[in-house]
Amino acid sequence: MRDVAIVGAGMIPFGELFDQGIKDMVSRAFGATLGSVDKGMRADEIEAAWFSEVQSVDGFPAGLLADACGLTDIPVTRVENACATGNDAIRNALYAVGGGYVDVALVLGADKVRDTASSATFWDWMSTNRDSAWDLPLGLISPASFALHVARYMHEFGATREHLARVAVKNHRNGARNPYAHLRFEVTMEQVLAAPMVVEPFGLLDCVPQSDGAAAVIIAGKDVVDRYTDRPVWVRGVGTGMDRVMHAHKADLSYFAATRKAAQRAFGMAGVGPGDIDVAEVHDCFSGVEMMTYEDLGFCDRGEAPRLLEKEETSIGGRIPVNPSGGLKSKGHPPGATGLAQCTELFEQLRGEAVNQVDGARWALAHNVGGPTAVSAVTILEGPRG
Amino acid sequence: MRDVAIVGAGMIPFGELFDQGIKDMVSRAFGATLGSVDKGMRADEIEAAWFSEVQSVDGFPAGLLADACGLTDIPVTRVENACATGNDAIRNALYAVGGGYVDVALVLGADKVRDTASSATFWDWMSTNRDSAWDLPLGLISPASFALHVARYMHEFGATREHLARVAVKNHRNGARNPYAHLRFEVTMEQVLAAPMVVEPFGLLDCVPQSDGAAAVIIAGKDVVDRYTDRPVWVRGVGTGMDRVMHAHKADLSYFAATRKAAQRAFGMAGVGPGDIDVAEVHDCFSGVEMMTYEDLGFCDRGEAPRLLEKEETSIGGRIPVNPSGGLKSKGHPPGATGLAQCTELFEQLRGEAVNQVDGARWALAHNVGGPTAVSAVTILEGPRG
Repeated sequence: MRDVAIVGAGMIPFGELFDQGIKDMVSRAFGATLGSVDKGMRADEIEAAWFSEVQSVDGFPAGLLADACGLTDIPVTRVENACATGNDAIRNALYAVGGGYVDVALVLGADKVRDTASSATFWDWMSTNRDSAWDLPLGLISPASFALHVARYMHEFGATREHLARVAVKNHRNGARNPYAHLRFEVTMEQVLAAPMVVEPFGLLDCVPQSDGAAAVIIAGKDVVDRYTDRPVWVRGVGTGMDRVMHAHKADLSYFAATRKAAQRAFGMAGVGPGDIDVAEVHDCFSGVEMMTYEDLGFCDRGEAPRLLEKEETSIGGRIPVNPSGGLKSKGHPPGATGLAQCTELFEQLRGEAVNQVDGARWALAHNVGGPTAVSAVTILEGPRG
Repeated sequence: MRDVAIVGAGMIPFGELFDQGIKDMVSRAFGATLGSVDKGMRADEIEAAWFSEVQSVDGFPAGLLADACGLTDIPVTRVENACATGNDAIRNALYAVGGGYVDVALVLGADKVRDTASSATFWDWMSTNRDSAWDLPLGLISPASFALHVARYMHEFGATREHLARVAVKNHRNGARNPYAHLRFEVTMEQVLAAPMVVEPFGLLDCVPQSDGAAAVIIAGKDVVDRYTDRPVWVRGVGTGMDRVMHAHKADLSYFAATRKAAQRAFGMAGVGPGDIDVAEVHDCFSGVEMMTYEDLGFCDRGEAPRLLEKEETSIGGRIPVNPSGGLKSKGHPPGATGLAQCTELFEQLRGEAVNQVDGARWALAHNVGGPTAVSAVTILEGPRG
């Protein structure tokens, strides 16, 4: 196997994109990504593509990507792994490039959730993402499913709704400055705590918006990286982890087993540890999930996540800034695009080009957790200044 | 990269499996596959899994596989590429194993199309597999879409409905002897020609049944193959090819561009040509598709496919037997499982253990074409007697 680097990354602004079809979104993200390659790249230099799309309600996914980007002369595979799809698609593409089968690969993620062309409903879609005999009829769709975990964590470690609110306030502060973010406004602690309750302990401002969006990275094998850039961002580790699907089967709701497994694999492959990470994009689909994930990724000891927030150690300027892009919370969450947008932000961070730049960042981590909290994917990147 | 071999392959009988949930189907196919490994294999020797599932209407796909097979401690990725999903999933797993990232990988395919847990309808599903703005409203779902190609081929090359019927008669003859086949009966030329018309030129007996089913292969890197078998079946070539999604955009309906691209890549990687193939499992979703595919795979010259059928060269005992398992036509077509079931048949063929054995077969080819005829995947295998 050989080293693999990201040589280009780009995205479109996330939001309620009623004026764009998914083909428009996909081709615009592809254009932005090609345009980000320092020394330029023609579309026909790409040898294979992976499409990260979760919901897929408009056309044949792999074919849609090929058609919209003029890539019908290369193989395209759709990967779907719930909200961990983006980073898992990068893992699949990395195997092809690192294994030497392909020199240059596109990984593009997109989802359009605010309007769809078919009559499939939100509940139809949800039925494909959790146990449909037990958890779905119980109402254990995303907010409820994550709430069970966060409520248990709060009970065991004395975290409060104020701690959760600190995540929302921090991420909206970052996202308000990000021109690609869906919700470009700041929120105050008081607003978060006073927002209408969605499901205990999540108020409306603890929850991610539903967003349309697209983002992509182009990866290349070490032998050809020089053709495209002198400032590559190396993909040092990838890892995917699973957990039981039904909540009744999970051993302990106070952590995310899938995240722990994914992180262990990615750190093992990269040969670094949590203490080496300078900046991270973490799956804050609900505020408390980011808090708990600090521990599952090893950024702090068990039970210490609330303290990290109190000391603002995950804010820009802190010890380990998390979600400088605004995170899913403010930037938005089109499931298939989310992991790619995280890596686009980190590509810019590690090259010193980010809107909310973390000074001197060398190592970065992207993290997704999704489905019925049963899958996680982690990607570890090293910048050109390493 | 290193050589990769199939060390185990298995399936459950295809059919209308109203008595089994998809979790039952998946775990039974997994058990059959583990059980086929000559020297035995424990489930915990598998390091990663790929799930080939197209329709996904019952639970979170990757998690469902992990849960049903007790594989929550390894990464699982769902791949979806319409009816080419099975062989494309093998391609993705091969990259991981051939690249040295994983020693032993499971590729399991399943679909349950005869009953589903959600309220999603056939039309909702079809909307995710073809252009939903143009081709879907025109009624260009699978039978009509393939009929446009076959009708054009018949017009250009003088093929007749009798030629198509020869495919159905041949494949039912093989499938009638296959205990894993869905439609275990023979049909006569007269029956095929007299069957009710579905869409010109396909009568009912030119069409594949809708089937439930599951099948799997276990692949391993060369260094560890000896642990599991002395009779490995080597995966020598993989290739995926795309075409435009909308039929109005296809350059020529008288062949399948996706198949040609997939075959070219797979043959190029394997270093062999069509003349080397001793036995093939070809995507006969409709009788005429198998006929046309003879040419796209290079088994005969352009326009010669009807002659191949007249001379029975693709029957058992002929020059290049196609679909000794009965093909999709008789064995059945649960989309995600189809490619894996083809490779299960070829695994047995190349080891001399098939029900309808092709004498002395050394090289084999599996082929899928799917979605709006916009994707194809081809796998080329070499037997232990090579």
